[in-house]
Amino acid sequence: PVSRLPQVGTTIFTTMSALALECQAVNLGQGFPDFDGDPRLMQAVKDAMDAGHNQYPPMAGVPALRQAIADKLLALYGRAYDPAHEITVTAGATQAILTAILALVHPGDEVIVLDPCYDSYEPNIVLAGATAVHVPLTAGSFRPDFDRIAAAITPRTRALIINSPHNPTGTVWSADEMQRLADLLRPTDILVLSDEVYEHMCFDGQVHQSVARHPELAARAVLVSSFGKTCHVTGWKVGYTAAPRALMDEFRKVHQFNVFTVNTPMQHGLAAYLADPTPYLELSAFYQAKRDLFRRGLADTALRPLPCEGTYFQVVDYSGLPDAIAALPEAQFCQWLTREAGVAAIPLSAFHADGRNQQLARLCFAKRDSTLHTALERLKRHL
Amino acid sequence: PVSRLPQVGTTIFTTMSALALECQAVNLGQGFPDFDGDPRLMQAVKDAMDAGHNQYPPMAGVPALRQAIADKLLALYGRAYDPAHEITVTAGATQAILTAILALVHPGDEVIVLDPCYDSYEPNIVLAGATAVHVPLTAGSFRPDFDRIAAAITPRTRALIINSPHNPTGTVWSADEMQRLADLLRPTDILVLSDEVYEHMCFDGQVHQSVARHPELAARAVLVSSFGKTCHVTGWKVGYTAAPRALMDEFRKVHQFNVFTVNTPMQHGLAAYLADPTPYLELSAFYQAKRDLFRRGLADTALRPLPCEGTYFQVVDYSGLPDAIAALPEAQFCQWLTREAGVAAIPLSAFHADGRNQQLARLCFAKRDSTLHTALERLKRHL
Ligand SMILES: CSCCC(=O)C(=O)O
Ligand SMILES: CSCCC(=O)C(=O)O
Repeated sequence: PVSRLPQVGTTIFTTMSALALECQAVNLGQGFPDFDGDPRLMQAVKDAMDAGHNQYPPMAGVPALRQAIADKLLALYGRAYDPAHEITVTAGATQAILTAILALVHPGDEVIVLDPCYDSYEPNIVLAGATAVHVPLTAGSFRPDFDRIAAAITPRTRALIINSPHNPTGTVWSADEMQRLADLLRPTDILVLSDEVYEHMCFDGQVHQSVARHPELAARAVLVSSFGKTCHVTGWKVGYTAAPRALMDEFRKVHQFNVFTVNTPMQHGLAAYLADPTPYLELSAFYQAKRDLFRRGLADTALRPLPCEGTYFQVVDYSGLPDAIAALPEAQFCQWLTREAGVAAIPLSAFHADGRNQQLARLCFAKRDSTLHTALERLKRHL
Repeated sequence: PVSRLPQVGTTIFTTMSALALECQAVNLGQGFPDFDGDPRLMQAVKDAMDAGHNQYPPMAGVPALRQAIADKLLALYGRAYDPAHEITVTAGATQAILTAILALVHPGDEVIVLDPCYDSYEPNIVLAGATAVHVPLTAGSFRPDFDRIAAAITPRTRALIINSPHNPTGTVWSADEMQRLADLLRPTDILVLSDEVYEHMCFDGQVHQSVARHPELAARAVLVSSFGKTCHVTGWKVGYTAAPRALMDEFRKVHQFNVFTVNTPMQHGLAAYLADPTPYLELSAFYQAKRDLFRRGLADTALRPLPCEGTYFQVVDYSGLPDAIAALPEAQFCQWLTREAGVAAIPLSAFHADGRNQQLARLCFAKRDSTLHTALERLKRHL
């Protein structure tokens, strides 16, 4: 029989990480730090293991961690989620998104996604028996185009996936844009799936517009985030989701038959560590300094950095390179960059359903300063 | 809109664990040990964290762990799986089973399950848009009834789920039964999903009949197992799946868009620990001693233990109890037992699609001997 996902191969992140390894390139492709999380967090996990927290936790997550998440959402965004019924710990954000879609989207439904978008959304929608409706962000500035979103809505539209700070482009939605989304959805019962994994990486004083700040949106939204990104431990695969109880009840029905529950010692360690919210509050400044270092270095190359308001990704335009290189489609350019310059990147075409080429590549600056310097040296030498 | 899983509530395991906590009962319900894994395993995970193994591992799993799994499958069952393409590490067996079903079962397909069976199978099948076809195991002895399986096969049958050692009944398939299954499936292209999470808990010299021992079955099978059960760390949520490449290619397409990958430090710790296969080889004797202790104690109660060839579950028949108690449906009996006797159990009706009552309950003996003694004391006092 044919594949359930005939269009799908291995993800671009796996492919480029393997190529980076093969070429001994500096891996600025897949989004993960090359430094470790806080030693206090590591110790908290070890303490949890020593305390015997190694068996199944409650299905929805360790209560102390759910409480820490609820406290954070209330303190930072002003919304009270009930940790008993409205917060669930997940095996990373990707699992949260598939689970939400399987739980809430029905066969035959449509789900609007805004391109470029993360590569798991469409396969997740297809697995639910639904259809992804692709609406482009505005060309060049990558902002939501509400006229085009409005035009894409049909009676079958079940949900809209938003993602701010935005992977791959680094744009951050404004409060005004959130308001326009609320206005647009008011007459509908369309759900919002809000991928906020880069919530604590907003630069230049920008304020993250969580759906939790916007009551009208929060009432119809599943909020998804990631401790892997926030705590520099992408390999631990712990994230969370928050939603009004009616939605969360459905989410948990599927969650319990997907992963059942999530790694116990990591949950206890995170709960102990995040009782103090400092890690959240320092993260934007930490990554803004890396962004600035990286952009200053890029100024000495022929790569043109696009604006970067949040996330730990910097998109660069390579149209200014010599013709033979500038003419390469994005995927080939990224392979060339990995092999020849020794710096791995991700083509933006991987985030576009139509695979369009715009001479853009994504570089991850969640790296030690020394790694960024090495990468910049290589880029300067070759570009 | 209606639920995607309208029949589903909170799992019986969550429900009974919560009741056990509320009643301060000895929890012999949900299947998990009340003792810790090997301190050397704990140390191996801590070492992995200290070595900086905290970011994304490869999508299919840490290579050393996949190699250790391949080595085990070859040494114990005689089949060579290619760790590069035929083994994937999962976030526990439950995630492996949903992922396999989403990847391999198409909307409109039928999947045969043998009742009583684990409670995630049918919701997993429903989420794939397919139908679960329930075939009972033989009454009383809980063995596969090949005539009834044959009669359930239709042109739409895509897969059959088997589970030996069997949860909840503790039966272990014989080599002859595996051969009869191979004979039955030979003229078809039906896939086998083999849930082998209790593979290392076979008693009285019984040999676990992994599909990996049976080439004809292995060629069409997805084998699923669990380090949580084998290494006494159910909360770590690490399992694995092995299958021929054509099936595994499809599995990985879905896996990468479900959890993407699995906890890095736990994978490294397990790889280091399982380089020596001793833990596998000692497990059956370890649990057989607990089974024997538990069954000896049950002899002093009015509960009649059914045969137990494997797993860490003992099914008991309560029809010999005073009429008022014996007349209770299984779910109410288990609540009574939890509240009144202070011992939590799982009703077998939870594993039957038709919810049938047979005056049977499942007790988990994966507990410290002192816990088993306490539970037995309470059972003797009340029954
Ligand atoms: C889950 S692997 C990819 C990590 C990531 O979020 C990204 O690189 O965009
Ligand atoms: C995933 S919670 C239930 C554990 C288990 O396998 C069982 O009790 O049957």
